[in-house]
Amino acid sequence: MAMKIEVVEIEKPEGVEAIIGQGNFSVFTVDDLARALLTAVPGIKFGIAMNEAKPQLTRFTGNDKELEELAARNALKIGGGHVFVILMRDAFPINVLNTVKSHPAVVMVYGASENPLQLIVAETELGRAVLGIVDGKAATKIETEEQKRERRELVERIGYTID
Amino acid sequence: MAMKIEVVEIEKPEGVEAIIGQGNFSVFTVDDLARALLTAVPGIKFGIAMNEAKPQLTRFTGNDKELEELAARNALKIGGGHVFVILMRDAFPINVLNTVKSHPAVVMVYGASENPLQLIVAETELGRAVLGIVDGKAATKIETEEQKRERRELVERIGYTID
Amino acid sequence: MAMKIEVVEIEKPEGVEAIIGQGNFSVFTVDDLARALLTAVPGIKFGIAMNEAKPQLTRFTGNDKELEELAARNALKIGGGHVFVILMRDAFPINVLNTVKSHPAVVMVYGASENPLQLIVAETELGRAVLGIVDGKAATKIETEEQKRERRELVERIGYTID
Amino acid sequence: MAMKIEVVEIEKPEGVEAIIGQGNFSVFTVDDLARALLTAVPGIKFGIAMNEAKPQLTRFTGNDKELEELAARNALKIGGGHVFVILMRDAFPINVLNTVKSHPAVVMVYGASENPLQLIVAETELGRAVLGIVDGKAATKIETEEQKRERRELVERIGYTID
Repeated sequence: MAMKIEVVEIEKPEGVEAIIGQGNFSVFTVDDLARALLTAVPGIKFGIAMNEAKPQLTRFTGNDKELEELAARNALKIGGGHVFVILMRDAFPINVLNTVKSHPAVVMVYGASENPLQLIVAETELGRAVLGIVDGKAATKIETEEQKRERRELVERIGYTID
Repeated sequence: MAMKIEVVEIEKPEGVEAIIGQGNFSVFTVDDLARALLTAVPGIKFGIAMNEAKPQLTRFTGNDKELEELAARNALKIGGGHVFVILMRDAFPINVLNTVKSHPAVVMVYGASENPLQLIVAETELGRAVLGIVDGKAATKIETEEQKRERRELVERIGYTID
Repeated sequence: MAMKIEVVEIEKPEGVEAIIGQGNFSVFTVDDLARALLTAVPGIKFGIAMNEAKPQLTRFTGNDKELEELAARNALKIGGGHVFVILMRDAFPINVLNTVKSHPAVVMVYGASENPLQLIVAETELGRAVLGIVDGKAATKIETEEQKRERRELVERIGYTID
Repeated sequence: MAMKIEVVEIEKPEGVEAIIGQGNFSVFTVDDLARALLTAVPGIKFGIAMNEAKPQLTRFTGNDKELEELAARNALKIGGGHVFVILMRDAFPINVLNTVKSHPAVVMVYGASENPLQLIVAETELGRAVLGIVDGKAATKIETEEQKRERRELVERIGYTID
């Protein structure tokens, strides 16, 4: 039996955070993970999608139509059974990563990022398996003192500070 | 020394859940994991099989003849030493995954699914090693509102609801 | 820069259990893991070896000369920096696996087995990295009822029973 | 889409310890992990760098100019988004590994070592993903009794002893 390797590009607008992983029991988990996200972060806006193999459907839900549809389109593009895609605004991966990883239907998380993402996917005649993740463009320069100061002002501006 | 890569198809009827992993001490573990499954879920029906390398035998047990034989046939097909296959009905992976992962003889779980499964297996002149898992067919469509409603009715019908 | 893949055969007599993993701080860890093994299982006989890259030495210790030398020979054969090999008698992996995995200098365990073992090793011009493990010969038959009864008698004979 | 595999050499002087891993939210995490290191080990000297994909910058901080610049140079060389490099003196990986792994923005640690290191990196047209790590030169000899005595004196001299 043969196997080929493919690179799948994730579609998402800037500013949207993604968490991509492997789980099971899609018909239940897509909603149950959604509830877990709602209780983890007040005000989170998200879409979650998860592939089912029988019927061959990408299941999805969330509390933001645009993110729900986008999560679904990306999960469909990856194709791999039981792969889930979470896309969110007004929440960072560090707010929910432990919630996601400890969910009883989650096997593993491949990556968590606001960057453009690509997945390395193996395809057999049955289906597709995620092998790895490329998390955004490669760095090309080291930050300057000026850029470091701007970065810290940014982190403070978005609220990660105590007085 | 040479190594070749092979795709192994798991045989199982629809509706049967599978958990495939790596462990050790097969002569003991096949029965001890079986006991752990029995205590984890009342009414679980399952077969478990685990490969031993010396003698080259697939060990198996369970509480359902059909699932026991099927688990054994699949473990034999994979071949890899210390690989185990659990096939079950009347229980979902989310009910037992933590029980399985925390068993002292379990090294790791490769996948947990009701979907058709394929394993990517490396073969040397000594034996075989599991490299990855394909978990069912790729999704081909996004669910419609109608399919979402049917899915939620299904989850409720199988008992995941409180009044 | 180039990379090649090699299969390394572990040498050990029948009846000797092996645990192979990755860690750090070899000059300290080889002895400290040895102490952890001594406190984990009364009567354990073992050798442990761990590779150091500077100087390029395989460090080793234990409480059994034969197993110490054999562990050292195998670690040397694998070559990979910070790889450790534990060989033991009068103890099973299930007795010490959690002790080993939770040691602060252990990164991961590749496998734990009494079977003949092969390691899939990548080699660059700098050194060598373990990619995977083949744990014994592939199974060729499913156990018979007779063999199952013999297996259970064996488990009982080696003490895994309560009256 | 194509993918190529590359071996990236980490630059660092002897005696400097490295921890290389994957995380997220670089603008925040580079400083927050730095604070975690400071509270984990009194007297630690370190530099930490982490790649951001937009802008394509290697972020860095620490409490030692040389190590900060070196960590930044190495992270830049690896390139992979959200990859972090910690370089340190006066602290060993065993002092901080659990602190690093349990940080809410850390996904995984690829390796922790004072040895020369190489990373196996996949490159797509988008960016770069770490696939594995070579941790120092391969061992070429087994330690002699004399070398074992010297090693134990060294461990004692660096303080791992109680009277």
